Amino acid sequence: MQFLLNGRFVEDAEARVPVSDRGFLYGDAAFDTLSAYGGRPFRAQAHLQRLVQSAAALRIELPVSIEQTEADLQRVIDRNAVSEAVLRVCVSRGSGPRGPSIRGEFRPTYLIGCYPAPSKPSVPIRLQTVGVRRTPAQSLPPYAKTANYLNSILALAEANDAGADEALMLDQRGCIAECAYSNVFFVADGTLLTPSLESGIIAGITRSAILELARDARIPVREADLEPALIAEADETLVTNSVRGIVPVGAIDGRTFAAPGRVTALLSLRYWELVARETSFG
Amino acid sequence: MQFLLNGRFVEDAEARVPVSDRGFLYGDAAFDTLSAYGGRPFRAQAHLQRLVQSAAALRIELPVSIEQTEADLQRVIDRNAVSEAVLRVCVSRGSGPRGPSIRGEFRPTYLIGCYPAPSKPSVPIRLQTVGVRRTPAQSLPPYAKTANYLNSILALAEANDAGADEALMLDQRGCIAECAYSNVFFVADGTLLTPSLESGIIAGITRSAILELARDARIPVREADLEPALIAEADETLVTNSVRGIVPVGAIDGRTFAAPGRVTALLSLRYWELVARETSFG
Repeated sequence: MQFLLNGRFVEDAEARVPVSDRGFLYGDAAFDTLSAYGGRPFRAQAHLQRLVQSAAALRIELPVSIEQTEADLQRVIDRNAVSEAVLRVCVSRGSGPRGPSIRGEFRPTYLIGCYPAPSKPSVPIRLQTVGVRRTPAQSLPPYAKTANYLNSILALAEANDAGADEALMLDQRGCIAECAYSNVFFVADGTLLTPSLESGIIAGITRSAILELARDARIPVREADLEPALIAEADETLVTNSVRGIVPVGAIDGRTFAAPGRVTALLSLRYWELVARETSFG
Repeated sequence: MQFLLNGRFVEDAEARVPVSDRGFLYGDAAFDTLSAYGGRPFRAQAHLQRLVQSAAALRIELPVSIEQTEADLQRVIDRNAVSEAVLRVCVSRGSGPRGPSIRGEFRPTYLIGCYPAPSKPSVPIRLQTVGVRRTPAQSLPPYAKTANYLNSILALAEANDAGADEALMLDQRGCIAECAYSNVFFVADGTLLTPSLESGIIAGITRSAILELARDARIPVREADLEPALIAEADETLVTNSVRGIVPVGAIDGRTFAAPGRVTALLSLRYWELVARETSFG
């Protein structure tokens, strides 16, 4: 695959950054991950708006406009002649003086990576509630997608140790927050439930799409503080992210679910219809 | 300066890593920073023991032994023919499969960077208590020094905005934790006070040296939970890190201190004597 690194196409294996890049030194970078379907990026505008917010939270100035970035995403898709792919846009603070201060001159590193799409369809996955708690909003802005990803990495490793595929993470209060790299939803008594953004989670683009689709389908929706007791009571569980869309959950902490459940299956169908409408996919 | 990258010396400006390196993607790396004085690394063993602990917390296997790393530190000092320098040892997880999982094959990146020593002497600095709270132990192991440094970067930026040089950070309970890149000490009624390691702070090598020196000098020492009210009551404040040693604090949040105070001056003297003894510096 060819990556676009600071405006130039390079073979992925040849794409390198200086070790003085703050992305490498400190994870001092904003990024966003999205999918291409039928040769078009899905919801690029929403992803790039979030990238702008993430970069602003870190006070990293984007080296190019949103319009240029959107055009660059399409250039990467076209250059690699891919129909379905995963795209990762990253803007690091770049190189500058030694030490953690952001005063001084930095020239951001701007990278679009392109990766093979995951195989479909998504089979039901197993979640494990982990001890690693989501980093609170007082410590890092939760709405920013940054390269400080160890909180998720350690949570996922703990879930993998327990034989699960994804980690269910609680916030500092003990309420359900999100998964290591997905948002989480439950269905109970016909209502679709998901933690509210106020609980300090990432504002997932797929999460937002699912909420739209549920409202269109007249499924009652509730964004709220969710206690772990819900795991025992829910009829269905699903997770969402921009790489896999909707993924049914077959088990949490050993409790099993019939997956995909009725609501999950309906939302999944509607989601792929939405993708097809907006990208002429399928 | 020449850096040692995966066992080879390269000019700092030429040292590069693949963009697929997890250090760049996720800040998925452990590091430690130390100083060389008189051509010898100071307390290399303690720093490398901490690096081993940091890497273990991230489940990154060090590609070389502690003994080899210590020898490599000396090789970097000798290669650059520096007497005083700052050394940064970093081990990232390296490149592997896409996504946050640590399952699969990774070949760690091992880097020793060498930087000019800061100018001396350390003039009194200004601290500012910031809104950004130290990431809690439940979210990331506080004893691990990792390349997930945004919590410190954002705290420091907030302090800089207020015209201060360093950020005084509180923990999630509101107790004093540490600074963005230093440990903090207070002197009140002749006692040296510092937050205990249980409050979720980094176990600073210089912090540990200062506690030794204070005990040797029969200065009463207390490691405890410290309330922000102490700022108004303290007679002296100082911060420590392995780049600058002891730095007197001249002001916190607008409250000024005579700096360096009597205890700070004594500990500073003793610290440089210790450095001289162990490195034949000076």
